[in-house]
Amino acid sequence: MKEKITVVKVGGAVVEDEARLSRLLSDFSAIEGRKVLVHGGGRRATAVASRLGIESKMVNGRRITDRDMLEVVTMVYGGLVNKNLVARLQANGVDAIGLTGADIDVIRSHKRPVKDVDYGFVGDVDRVDGHKLRTLIEAGITPVMAPLTHDGNGNILNTNADTIAAETAKALAEHYDVTLIFSFEKKGVLSNPDDEDSVIPLITRADFERYVADGTVVGGMLPKLENAFEAISAGVSRVNITLATAIDGRHGTMITE
Amino acid sequence: MKEKITVVKVGGAVVEDEARLSRLLSDFSAIEGRKVLVHGGGRRATAVASRLGIESKMVNGRRITDRDMLEVVTMVYGGLVNKNLVARLQANGVDAIGLTGADIDVIRSHKRPVKDVDYGFVGDVDRVDGHKLRTLIEAGITPVMAPLTHDGNGNILNTNADTIAAETAKALAEHYDVTLIFSFEKKGVLSNPDDEDSVIPLITRADFERYVADGTVVGGMLPKLENAFEAISAGVSRVNITLATAIDGRHGTMITE
Repeated sequence: MKEKITVVKVGGAVVEDEARLSRLLSDFSAIEGRKVLVHGGGRRATAVASRLGIESKMVNGRRITDRDMLEVVTMVYGGLVNKNLVARLQANGVDAIGLTGADIDVIRSHKRPVKDVDYGFVGDVDRVDGHKLRTLIEAGITPVMAPLTHDGNGNILNTNADTIAAETAKALAEHYDVTLIFSFEKKGVLSNPDDEDSVIPLITRADFERYVADGTVVGGMLPKLENAFEAISAGVSRVNITLATAIDGRHGTMITE
Repeated sequence: MKEKITVVKVGGAVVEDEARLSRLLSDFSAIEGRKVLVHGGGRRATAVASRLGIESKMVNGRRITDRDMLEVVTMVYGGLVNKNLVARLQANGVDAIGLTGADIDVIRSHKRPVKDVDYGFVGDVDRVDGHKLRTLIEAGITPVMAPLTHDGNGNILNTNADTIAAETAKALAEHYDVTLIFSFEKKGVLSNPDDEDSVIPLITRADFERYVADGTVVGGMLPKLENAFEAISAGVSRVNITLATAIDGRHGTMITE
């Protein structure tokens, strides 16, 4: 039987709220066994960019990353957010290491081709090196992954944190029994967006297709669930979409085949 | 006989000049065997701080690090500079990993006590974990170290890059035959500050004491040489002070007991 591992993705909104962050870090630290943390930081990047006089442009919820914005996200995701998470996890007794895709060449990507939209320095993931990640993990180290990748030619690229989490979970599925947790600011996938308690406890692929067709699942939840099912298809055992302060695997929406 | 390792410290001025940086990275990549890169980034931090409306205050050549400046150096050293160096080394075929002291708890420090000057969030190094560094190095990984440490209580601290390099070299001396190279914008320690070619090829401890007494060694070179001799006393085999584009161990000033 494969050893268990938990991959937790935490969004930017949580990272910036001290009370919720503190709770999240405490819950994450309490997860038994192997684990990986993947973080966002978009709101913080927007704030720093704004202070530097750089405008944040979003298309379909994705950031347009020109050269100035690439510097901002490299600073904010790779430095400010990542290193503070690592330092705080160390204080909790978790032997964390901060990684971008460039570090030990762990996530290689290519610059997204320009079709209708030029997203700029945004990377679409080519591969996650699960073997190298495993070397760290088996040494008792907990990777803390920033939403940055590299193209192998010396360029950092901005990459969606949900994608990093899903691709990492998939790469680890060869060696581990993987639980992938997407934590965010709601209790789970809601059947009624106006009712915070209308959490759908379980979504199968058939349910998902029905929810998309009838409009229950829209907006930012759509790529999140698509990521989830792709991960399941690629061998991830289960995906949990839950509140950032409820990452114990017993709350939120569970996604299975 | 111990295996050789080279620890190279590169200053902020080199990191910011594309032609020199490119040459340095190429030379560093060509160093055979185990190696570690330690970088500064002070000028870049000053520039980003200035754009954010934060004033850089220096005392005795050391940066006063208030809370705002700590955010800036965490972004610039831990993110912008570190991750770009890592990505570019990867492009050169060097399997680099970016580290602050918080990552795998590799450098623990304490906030410098306030005496005459309150340096703010500046960390004085307590210990470098040579064993953990060695685990990475023996896996064929090249650590790229930012001048940031942590206090074990969740706080990042700003730490002088020369100190990081010296302390890292000392911690590795137990396991390796260590060459420590301080690269900077001059050809070596000069006997005449107005003559760029007046490089002193070799400085022993006795020479150093004489040079301090007669005023040959002053300013920023003083702590650099003090660091060098401390490193030698702690088991580092040799220290080389040289131009950033001449890190092959055959140029500059060599320091020995």
